[in-house]
Amino acid sequence: MQSLSEQIDNKINQKTKPLGALGKLEKWAKKIALIQNTLELRLTNPHIVIFAGDHGVSEERVSAYPSEVTTQMVHNFLAGGAAINVFCRQQNIELKIVDAGTKGDFSNVNQANFIQAKIAKGTKNFAKEAAMNPQQMEEALRRGKEIVDEVYQQGCNVIGFGEMGIGNTSSASVLMHLLTALPLTTCVGRGTGLDDAQLLRKIYVLEKATLDFESNNIKEILAHFGGFEIAMMVGAILAASQLKMIVLIDGFISSAAYLVAQEMYSNIKNNCFFSHLSEESGHFYLLEHLDIEPMLHLDLRLGEGTGCALAYPLLQNAVIFFNEMASFESAGVSQKST
Amino acid sequence: MQSLSEQIDNKINQKTKPLGALGKLEKWAKKIALIQNTLELRLTNPHIVIFAGDHGVSEERVSAYPSEVTTQMVHNFLAGGAAINVFCRQQNIELKIVDAGTKGDFSNVNQANFIQAKIAKGTKNFAKEAAMNPQQMEEALRRGKEIVDEVYQQGCNVIGFGEMGIGNTSSASVLMHLLTALPLTTCVGRGTGLDDAQLLRKIYVLEKATLDFESNNIKEILAHFGGFEIAMMVGAILAASQLKMIVLIDGFISSAAYLVAQEMYSNIKNNCFFSHLSEESGHFYLLEHLDIEPMLHLDLRLGEGTGCALAYPLLQNAVIFFNEMASFESAGVSQKST
Repeated sequence: MQSLSEQIDNKINQKTKPLGALGKLEKWAKKIALIQNTLELRLTNPHIVIFAGDHGVSEERVSAYPSEVTTQMVHNFLAGGAAINVFCRQQNIELKIVDAGTKGDFSNVNQANFIQAKIAKGTKNFAKEAAMNPQQMEEALRRGKEIVDEVYQQGCNVIGFGEMGIGNTSSASVLMHLLTALPLTTCVGRGTGLDDAQLLRKIYVLEKATLDFESNNIKEILAHFGGFEIAMMVGAILAASQLKMIVLIDGFISSAAYLVAQEMYSNIKNNCFFSHLSEESGHFYLLEHLDIEPMLHLDLRLGEGTGCALAYPLLQNAVIFFNEMASFESAGVSQKST
Repeated sequence: MQSLSEQIDNKINQKTKPLGALGKLEKWAKKIALIQNTLELRLTNPHIVIFAGDHGVSEERVSAYPSEVTTQMVHNFLAGGAAINVFCRQQNIELKIVDAGTKGDFSNVNQANFIQAKIAKGTKNFAKEAAMNPQQMEEALRRGKEIVDEVYQQGCNVIGFGEMGIGNTSSASVLMHLLTALPLTTCVGRGTGLDDAQLLRKIYVLEKATLDFESNNIKEILAHFGGFEIAMMVGAILAASQLKMIVLIDGFISSAAYLVAQEMYSNIKNNCFFSHLSEESGHFYLLEHLDIEPMLHLDLRLGEGTGCALAYPLLQNAVIFFNEMASFESAGVSQKST
């Protein structure tokens, strides 16, 4: 009897096209078929979840924008005016906005697309002390899992994760540096738009912050340098993979969260699609380290899950060709002469 | 007073995102705004037109598939089972199928999406004589223009072009070789899947066919080596550009048609979006020669306009962010600190 993998290959190779002519779409269709364990693919109730959090380290002036922008942007998400809002509207993706730990007060917000999961009003400054304590870190992982469980219960089988958090490229860069052993300068980039002097300052701050840190324990690393939105995303990626959902990873921060998640549980790569290669310079090296080919090359560096929303139509097209294209036999088309 | 170009830049830079953070989408939005001469972009009644034609040169066994496949695939397009059909359904793009010169008999077909424009039952074998005579070439250009005019009358302002024609990578490779002066071996690839021996034969056939050809006249080159579907697409690209439509170019064959069109009328680049980089090896060098960055990198090599259909959502997203995203002022978001 044929294995599922062979059945998938046969189905793809019988489509009315030269062998392999749909390139990466064929690989993605196969990946989805293996995740869903079927020859009839489905994408149902797609979601993007944005985790927002503030970072104590932003007081070291490692970002081009003031930390108030995190909260202002959450209001922008709630009002529907941000890039991720318009892209989700365009693609018919449901958007959830999570306060994972901003400085803002959203206690009065009861929009259906808002999830209150604030661990604290921002992390502590990891240039001076651990960003969060172990309980906060566990709480963030747990809330991330709960949020995904709830979305899954609503019939969602494809989910993308985005983030908002002024200062969070600093957090992601240090996580990447410690987990990949790549030089810090390879992991640090200009974030929202630092100039040369500011970039040097950022590298200096991060180098100093990591000097005396010695643990190899993944949870200690995450607690010391992570953001609440990053830790919550780690929990969310792990939960979604366990539920055999299709997971869309966004850019640099999200890939760093993926890196942490993979370190905790190595068996998640087969569920994850990496939506794009970000302009943030560390992302190229992180994807290279992970041996991953991104779906899109759009020079984005915005976060919010925007890459996930933009890549989603490619998954839809992979699914529809696999499900609906005619075979050589059904269409009466001759095969290759040789 | 600000120029339109400055007004476009201002509108993009006031959106709630770091400067340039939407990467290529920002460039595409600006390009569309310049084509449409407005700050409110619109994509209306999108179409993809497939031109199908047979090639006399296929009797030299330059393709892995028999020439009957052209006609069989047109039937597949008409029945809705090909890749381009399912992608157009997914993206809500209207598909038109043009018999530009197949060997098949479609005289009884009167589906609304079929256009009868047969110049002849396939071109002549350009390894022995000119593929078409000057009257046929002019007729093909004229019919391409007419077809676009008609689609435009129906309110379409964005159009992609695809093709189907066993043997047409041979035609496209020679056109590229003669118009770019790049070595023939750089311009010739494996088409629908030639092995090494077949590829060498293809190069040999094409080298021999071009040996005694001396004209630099673009119309003589097109008539001698072109296919009916290629010549008709040249007319279509020229007409669509003149009508200030947004033009989506597909893969290798379509880019060769673009190259011919640009040689006839240099001022069309600003209207054209190159949807993807094909796996067909000459395409990389052709885009490099034209100094063009493709939108997608999906390793496609199928034609039919499939790359246009897959790239179309990116144009929709470029338009929606430009039209609908909030500005810093309207959303109350702080700008960069510096």
